[in-house]
Amino acid sequence: MRMYDIIKKKRDGFELSKEEIEFFIKGYVDGSIPDYQVSALLMAIYFNKMNKEETLFLTNAMKNSGETIDLSDIKGIKVDKHSTGGVGDKTTIALLPLVCSCGLISAKMSGRGLGHTGGTIDKLESIAGFNTNVEIDEFINSVNKIGVCLSGQSKEVAIADKKIYALRDVTATVDNISLIASSIMSKKLASGTDKIVLDVKTGDGAFMKNIEDAVELAKEMVDIGNGSCVETVAIVSDMNEPLGFAVGNSLEVMEAIDTLKGKGPKDLEELCKVLGAHMLLLGGVEKDYDEGYKKIEQAIKSGSAISKLKEFIKNQGGNENVVDDYSLFPKSKYIFELKSKKSGFVSKIKAEEIGVSAMMLGAGRGQKEDVIDLSVGIVLNKKIGDFIDEGQLLARIHYNDEEKFKSAVDKIEKAFEFSETQVESKKLIYTVIK
Amino acid sequence: MRMYDIIKKKRDGFELSKEEIEFFIKGYVDGSIPDYQVSALLMAIYFNKMNKEETLFLTNAMKNSGETIDLSDIKGIKVDKHSTGGVGDKTTIALLPLVCSCGLISAKMSGRGLGHTGGTIDKLESIAGFNTNVEIDEFINSVNKIGVCLSGQSKEVAIADKKIYALRDVTATVDNISLIASSIMSKKLASGTDKIVLDVKTGDGAFMKNIEDAVELAKEMVDIGNGSCVETVAIVSDMNEPLGFAVGNSLEVMEAIDTLKGKGPKDLEELCKVLGAHMLLLGGVEKDYDEGYKKIEQAIKSGSAISKLKEFIKNQGGNENVVDDYSLFPKSKYIFELKSKKSGFVSKIKAEEIGVSAMMLGAGRGQKEDVIDLSVGIVLNKKIGDFIDEGQLLARIHYNDEEKFKSAVDKIEKAFEFSETQVESKKLIYTVIK
Repeated sequence: MRMYDIIKKKRDGFELSKEEIEFFIKGYVDGSIPDYQVSALLMAIYFNKMNKEETLFLTNAMKNSGETIDLSDIKGIKVDKHSTGGVGDKTTIALLPLVCSCGLISAKMSGRGLGHTGGTIDKLESIAGFNTNVEIDEFINSVNKIGVCLSGQSKEVAIADKKIYALRDVTATVDNISLIASSIMSKKLASGTDKIVLDVKTGDGAFMKNIEDAVELAKEMVDIGNGSCVETVAIVSDMNEPLGFAVGNSLEVMEAIDTLKGKGPKDLEELCKVLGAHMLLLGGVEKDYDEGYKKIEQAIKSGSAISKLKEFIKNQGGNENVVDDYSLFPKSKYIFELKSKKSGFVSKIKAEEIGVSAMMLGAGRGQKEDVIDLSVGIVLNKKIGDFIDEGQLLARIHYNDEEKFKSAVDKIEKAFEFSETQVESKKLIYTVIK
Repeated sequence: MRMYDIIKKKRDGFELSKEEIEFFIKGYVDGSIPDYQVSALLMAIYFNKMNKEETLFLTNAMKNSGETIDLSDIKGIKVDKHSTGGVGDKTTIALLPLVCSCGLISAKMSGRGLGHTGGTIDKLESIAGFNTNVEIDEFINSVNKIGVCLSGQSKEVAIADKKIYALRDVTATVDNISLIASSIMSKKLASGTDKIVLDVKTGDGAFMKNIEDAVELAKEMVDIGNGSCVETVAIVSDMNEPLGFAVGNSLEVMEAIDTLKGKGPKDLEELCKVLGAHMLLLGGVEKDYDEGYKKIEQAIKSGSAISKLKEFIKNQGGNENVVDDYSLFPKSKYIFELKSKKSGFVSKIKAEEIGVSAMMLGAGRGQKEDVIDLSVGIVLNKKIGDFIDEGQLLARIHYNDEEKFKSAVDKIEKAFEFSETQVESKKLIYTVIK
């Protein structure tokens, strides 16, 4: 078998076989196939696409290219939740204790943030003492003991994906549904979960700018999961404005805690209920979606979710008092109150601009090596559809560095658009793909 | 400027600017742009093509990437002839002294063979003592003195093309008209000629298998030449069977000499007349094509062409007695007479198969480093349209190595196809593009 022939076959619009895809992945990882042949193939895939079968083969070849995590010692059905990334997406932090308090196993490997979207691991490090680097044995023990554990990924999973992603990033071959879906799913399938609930974001602040593409990606990933015997459900949710109000690490954790106290933003709370209900359904805790939804609501009302959060934080070495005392979180030196220069209904809050601005303040990484500032960020005071008068508070900007603030403040202001006529607030959940 | 954006622009179907094309060529040659980005761009070009302007920019950027040869000290208009490569194509060897004896300057840089087509430089080395490595000053002096000189290319012309061609070869991005045309023309334009006559081959033994593609390539190259102020004419000629009868180095030189003696194969003689007449026209020796054609005919009949050939050989240190005594050429140890197993009209002589067979006998190179055997090859006894009886001579196979012979003989036999009904011989010249 020759890589040349594989490139030519895809270039000419033919379907690649399982053997050809495995040959290419194996050869790329072991160094026998050079970058320049792989980038040519990726560009041919960009143009001629891959069908469902090829995508499944590619996903599994990438999954098998690195270590796979064995979580079979965990008792019960493990349901992973994965978001394709959005601005202000602190859902995992609320959702994990929430579904756990409803009786579902919550064993999650999570990542750090890069670019305009944050990472759960970074956010949780706002809690003093919280250990995000849990060894696998301890991870399994924690889940078996208290039902929940979250850790950063230490194993080298799906190393072919890492290599291919880096290459796609510099050769303009990122934007292909099969390549995106296989990249996400190869890592998920290697992480030892039994079932998956996907939150595919769509809109200005998401990777998928329009709903059609998001639905296509969701379908592709659901097919890969189900085709790999890992039952998968995807919801397609809105990312045209930030999720909730808070953007920035400690600010987001506080908002997640608020949500478990029943005082969270409506959109975040609703998203937790929908995702949670699907997780309970997949995990066999409930047999009916509506019952699951109610159970989640009840866990918030009864306080069992917030208790589980404290247990979760304590178990991982964190100071659980943060739940009741937000002064224990890292605080920025300054808070600027951004006032509206216009009156009207908020018609747009460009989520990507808000995400990039938060990154510029220090809340996120432009480069992998960047050190982040856990205290800074933006807290919106208005959401799409809200009315605001000139001079009223639009958002609070939490910052430590005057220069960084100056570079971000204009961008934040420009992220807002207004309308004289009433604007409907955005739909949160567009569709569910099973 | 970033290479990433250039790849993305071409991927998305936009036209690249002169500056972008120059940036990419310069960066690739100086090493600041890596292979894997260039191969991704090449694949995007394969799919989205380049328009005439982009192709012209690319050609000139590649031309300027290496040394350019200054032949301005040669008096008179220099008309280069270039063939896209065919089996048994010994045209240059006959044509150079032919047009020179008609009063045209003949200053040619030529190449060696690779794959199933031979190279003029290799062929001429069949003549004992013939120096194919003439220094530039001596080259110019020779042309000014006797009107003709031919040498291998010693300067590093169009080095971007060399690098890009090597990459295209392993990434399945060879088959694109713009890339092919710019590759050929960048080298031609760097070689210091004033005008160009192109012989674009089409058919089984050529790079362009069908006429439409050959015409498109011819048009593209003519546009590049004219767009670069180097007047260019292209003829599209047949390569569905080998040109003439002989395939293999010394065998081909003898056939070229025969042609200048008026005893050559009809197709080769006709091709020389057509190409020659266009060269005389471009070079201003004749103002009318038909007059040029007649002048070429006359040069053969009068013996002036054969005299010029002797002068040409002698001037480059070769033994000019070969012209009258073919026993001075390298001879193979064995000649096998391949007899026909069928009776009928020859309907096909797969030129590529014949070319590959000659290469297998030792007449050509599979790899650049291969040493070739100047004596071996194949001499057809029949051409398409000829009738043959079972048992009659189909071809003579000249060989030195029993193993090589065994591996080639079947292939040669299978290259012939027969028909019970009369078959028209192939048209030689399909069209002329100005």
